[in-house]
Amino acid sequence: MSHPHDPDRRRDIAHVGPIELYTPVLEESRDFFVNVLALREVHRDDTSVYLHTWDDYQSWTIRLVRRDAAGIGRTYLRAAGPEARDRLAGQIEGTGPGPHRVVDDVRGLGEVFLFADPDGHEFGLYWDVEWYRPDASDTPALKNQAAAYPGRGANLRRLDHVNYLTADVPATSAFLSDVLGARCTEQIVKDDGGPQAVWYSVGNKTYDLVYTEDWTGTRGRLHHVAFATDTREEILRAADVCLDAGVHIETGPHKHAIQQTFFLYVWEPGGNRIEICNAGARLILAPDWKTISWTREERAKGQAWGLRTIDTFHTHGTPVVPPAS
Amino acid sequence: MSHPHDPDRRRDIAHVGPIELYTPVLEESRDFFVNVLALREVHRDDTSVYLHTWDDYQSWTIRLVRRDAAGIGRTYLRAAGPEARDRLAGQIEGTGPGPHRVVDDVRGLGEVFLFADPDGHEFGLYWDVEWYRPDASDTPALKNQAAAYPGRGANLRRLDHVNYLTADVPATSAFLSDVLGARCTEQIVKDDGGPQAVWYSVGNKTYDLVYTEDWTGTRGRLHHVAFATDTREEILRAADVCLDAGVHIETGPHKHAIQQTFFLYVWEPGGNRIEICNAGARLILAPDWKTISWTREERAKGQAWGLRTIDTFHTHGTPVVPPAS
Amino acid sequence: MSHPHDPDRRRDIAHVGPIELYTPVLEESRDFFVNVLALREVHRDDTSVYLHTWDDYQSWTIRLVRRDAAGIGRTYLRAAGPEARDRLAGQIEGTGPGPHRVVDDVRGLGEVFLFADPDGHEFGLYWDVEWYRPDASDTPALKNQAAAYPGRGANLRRLDHVNYLTADVPATSAFLSDVLGARCTEQIVKDDGGPQAVWYSVGNKTYDLVYTEDWTGTRGRLHHVAFATDTREEILRAADVCLDAGVHIETGPHKHAIQQTFFLYVWEPGGNRIEICNAGARLILAPDWKTISWTREERAKGQAWGLRTIDTFHTHGTPVVPPAS
Amino acid sequence: MSHPHDPDRRRDIAHVGPIELYTPVLEESRDFFVNVLALREVHRDDTSVYLHTWDDYQSWTIRLVRRDAAGIGRTYLRAAGPEARDRLAGQIEGTGPGPHRVVDDVRGLGEVFLFADPDGHEFGLYWDVEWYRPDASDTPALKNQAAAYPGRGANLRRLDHVNYLTADVPATSAFLSDVLGARCTEQIVKDDGGPQAVWYSVGNKTYDLVYTEDWTGTRGRLHHVAFATDTREEILRAADVCLDAGVHIETGPHKHAIQQTFFLYVWEPGGNRIEICNAGARLILAPDWKTISWTREERAKGQAWGLRTIDTFHTHGTPVVPPAS
Repeated sequence: MSHPHDPDRRRDIAHVGPIELYTPVLEESRDFFVNVLALREVHRDDTSVYLHTWDDYQSWTIRLVRRDAAGIGRTYLRAAGPEARDRLAGQIEGTGPGPHRVVDDVRGLGEVFLFADPDGHEFGLYWDVEWYRPDASDTPALKNQAAAYPGRGANLRRLDHVNYLTADVPATSAFLSDVLGARCTEQIVKDDGGPQAVWYSVGNKTYDLVYTEDWTGTRGRLHHVAFATDTREEILRAADVCLDAGVHIETGPHKHAIQQTFFLYVWEPGGNRIEICNAGARLILAPDWKTISWTREERAKGQAWGLRTIDTFHTHGTPVVPPAS
Repeated sequence: MSHPHDPDRRRDIAHVGPIELYTPVLEESRDFFVNVLALREVHRDDTSVYLHTWDDYQSWTIRLVRRDAAGIGRTYLRAAGPEARDRLAGQIEGTGPGPHRVVDDVRGLGEVFLFADPDGHEFGLYWDVEWYRPDASDTPALKNQAAAYPGRGANLRRLDHVNYLTADVPATSAFLSDVLGARCTEQIVKDDGGPQAVWYSVGNKTYDLVYTEDWTGTRGRLHHVAFATDTREEILRAADVCLDAGVHIETGPHKHAIQQTFFLYVWEPGGNRIEICNAGARLILAPDWKTISWTREERAKGQAWGLRTIDTFHTHGTPVVPPAS
Repeated sequence: MSHPHDPDRRRDIAHVGPIELYTPVLEESRDFFVNVLALREVHRDDTSVYLHTWDDYQSWTIRLVRRDAAGIGRTYLRAAGPEARDRLAGQIEGTGPGPHRVVDDVRGLGEVFLFADPDGHEFGLYWDVEWYRPDASDTPALKNQAAAYPGRGANLRRLDHVNYLTADVPATSAFLSDVLGARCTEQIVKDDGGPQAVWYSVGNKTYDLVYTEDWTGTRGRLHHVAFATDTREEILRAADVCLDAGVHIETGPHKHAIQQTFFLYVWEPGGNRIEICNAGARLILAPDWKTISWTREERAKGQAWGLRTIDTFHTHGTPVVPPAS
Repeated sequence: MSHPHDPDRRRDIAHVGPIELYTPVLEESRDFFVNVLALREVHRDDTSVYLHTWDDYQSWTIRLVRRDAAGIGRTYLRAAGPEARDRLAGQIEGTGPGPHRVVDDVRGLGEVFLFADPDGHEFGLYWDVEWYRPDASDTPALKNQAAAYPGRGANLRRLDHVNYLTADVPATSAFLSDVLGARCTEQIVKDDGGPQAVWYSVGNKTYDLVYTEDWTGTRGRLHHVAFATDTREEILRAADVCLDAGVHIETGPHKHAIQQTFFLYVWEPGGNRIEICNAGARLILAPDWKTISWTREERAKGQAWGLRTIDTFHTHGTPVVPPAS
């Protein structure tokens, strides 16, 4: 945050996704994503299920992986072009000890350059990608759409962002800014002036990657994964759907003051927090957008319309760990 | 269209706007934009009125200029950065005879590099810009918003795109693609394979600049200027508001198959066609998006849900001219 | 229409429904109602399928009956109470030749008093009724709701109204007004002053029963059956769903000037016209509401926002018959 | 609640409204209702201002009256007809000591029969009423609408219901049921089986009059007055509008489990709680609807999606009084 963003710096990341999510109850998680959230199962192997959101041009959106503990697996980042991939990979390699390596066994993606953020969350940078091919049952009527609208449950449209917990917000923030070239659009500032949470954007979306301080001091955890709908009403309806389906609704629907995101937080059966969100028609079009800072005092007013933030929102992360003593 | 887009090419244009619109009835046009569409008058001089949409970070969004005939004036394009501006200006200068010149007397903008597209529509490229400063009456409660939500009429959020008529679609399309570096996301293709209309995007919005063949053979005309709302329901409500206000509703609300834009077309008092639109949550995230082509036969099916396109949509443009014989 | 309504007259009809609909393609019609419109199959016998909308307190909403030709079967009317039933049945019996008879073999209903309107459409008046009992798969989370929100396709909420074609609008209108005690809230008046179509309400809904002149002179036909959603946006989404499902969209979504109904007309596989509608939050609370009359000239302006009415809307009815010569 | 409702009992009340509201800051309250809620000032005298909602067929909807303390004034009930008025007035007179009297000086209403509920809230029963006559500035385009859609602030449509505090819920509930003939559609039941709050309906709306136990033991107070919009999204937008206008948002937007009302509670400048609500498309069509009872345990789950009820919702009423010791 100390360095203002250079608008002339190349934007070498096109977007975030697909991602991997760990769950100790693979089939229950799969059923939740398919029946309630309306993703589509497009592939499965011994340990995982690949799911697709209807507005994703790529062949899959999220891979649920069976693990002992819930949490976030790899986050894949698509480069803006083949040169962008090479340039960015070079930059990442130049920043430190690694491990950095290239793999070519990721479903639907070409060569993937693997790296980690300073907190240990694993990322994969790629360019080549397989596009989604609908079959007879989900071919859309309009050919500018990846797949037919599912007409099922919450009808989630696409992956929107990932919010990671980190033991060191300044370090990860510097990595996103200086190495990855992302832009910090908003942040929460602590009384000592340091960042407590940072929202980063790679294009015109108001944010794509978020880092929040992990109060337990643990590294590599997840706060939540978020999916987008078109309207706020669709999020209200998603809440109705989740209520009938017996899903744990943590908080919402309500509106964040930060980013003005209209949100609903639920926990999937594996324990990961899932946000169903809508940033409305907000786009960051200004190439020199100035980071909006929110103080503790401003945060004390609650969410946009005054809702107090629920305690678990500050304490629950995956994998679940006891707070550091 | 013949050349596939190079994803590694720099995106030197950040966004479209502000723009100038000509009207023979300045005050009537001004009242329509303020009272019905909910723009705010921020400045006026002897021949024009400057108006602002509540979600525009810049000091004004559209300037209404008194002229004998309606039509589009300058379209200003903000560069992605100061280097981007210089690079793009150099590229434009290198492509032809001009006239190219730099002016510094545009309200709220710094130096502006003026040029024209092959059809004669005037453009201005700039980097330095004055940000919008709300006064006591439109200061928003949330500081990540340019101005308070007006709560008036159709509550238009921001400029969305401009659709120009052109006597030569291939030439203007090549200019946008090769010189300006914009990406063609969708197009209408004639039976002879040539483009009849082209939709160009400069960022993650599905389109920002559109060129449609001018059946009169005239140069430099306007098909419409479009403003965005958040939801389709807001466009339905805008239609209710326009109906009560006695505004000429040309067609809609309905959904285009092309770009899936939900639209309402009305004519402002000066005769210019104004679109109130919503592309929903559609974003172009793929850096190698493949241009979607629509044939005459596909177009014959009508709009997305089957509405026949109204005749005036094909014949009305500003300034109004008799068709070439 | 000639006699102003007496507000002190008892309202002996509580609501319209369930209804029977004839279809030559029973299974195709059933699949459309279940998969696209989101009704639930609750029972079937050799010749018919019983379907339920999620907000209907009764055990079924519509019965699809296999017949050679499409069309409307019986319309059941629930009396406001047991005395109301007897009073109204007595009134109907007193008005003419019949046939009037009582049956007790209608699924989920107690004794039903059968009669016909002057055009021959069959009706059944009843009081005793079986309430809907959800099973494990559609038990709602909130006990003030009949069944869980389906989260499927167009998610239709409840039956809204039936629009009958009639060879004699004045006679059927007088029957509704004088015998059944319904109130005419709006009407289309011909140049000769006679009614061309009449909208009748039995409670606070703006209308429940509609009669439109049959240009073929045939008796007993159907113009359409309508189901309600909560919002206009849900009707736009229903149009998206119908488009993907390959359903014939006849016209809409758009807004009628009459009753301000937001509408979408589609044809179910059997050929019957189905309206998906939303009258918004309009309620008729005035007990002395004055019938709104629309002239041919007013109708010539098109729908509320100017849409021309499509030809088939005036010519298609079920069963399909050649126009009288 | 002990007596099941007789569906054959006549419904002698057509609807609730207009109403009077007391405020110690008349002009501030007036400005809030006009500028934020979008009511229209239609008349004023020395001590009060008359306001109209755009979908009210009557000449005014709410009268703000200058008083030392906030609170509810008279609630006017329109009879279903002239005979209904006489019948109901006779019934009320027969039930007790009074005072009952007839006045003819209420603006826009004919003779009004005044009475009080057992808790002392004043009511007025009337039949003759002046219909709203829009002037040039609010004449609607569609003649089945009382006034043009205001296109201002929260655009409230009509009065929806009044929620009174009462020292004796059973007595007032019996009065509504036995004397006024209203139907109890939902209730909160205390551990001792007695009602803590009751929701009464006079037509097809799910409720019109609500009584909630006053924890202070005071008589004649108000919990809130509610106005309706068309959609849940409009209530979200109302919250945005209230936030920008600096209005005190008490709680919401969220969804009640009871009646499934989507709600936003704000305090008008005089201190009265105002609800902006939407019961969606829920209507009570069953003439024998069985009262839904909610227990303390069910209430402990919070609102529909789990929101804890804010403390002031249980403690604030107008006029403000110290709790009984």
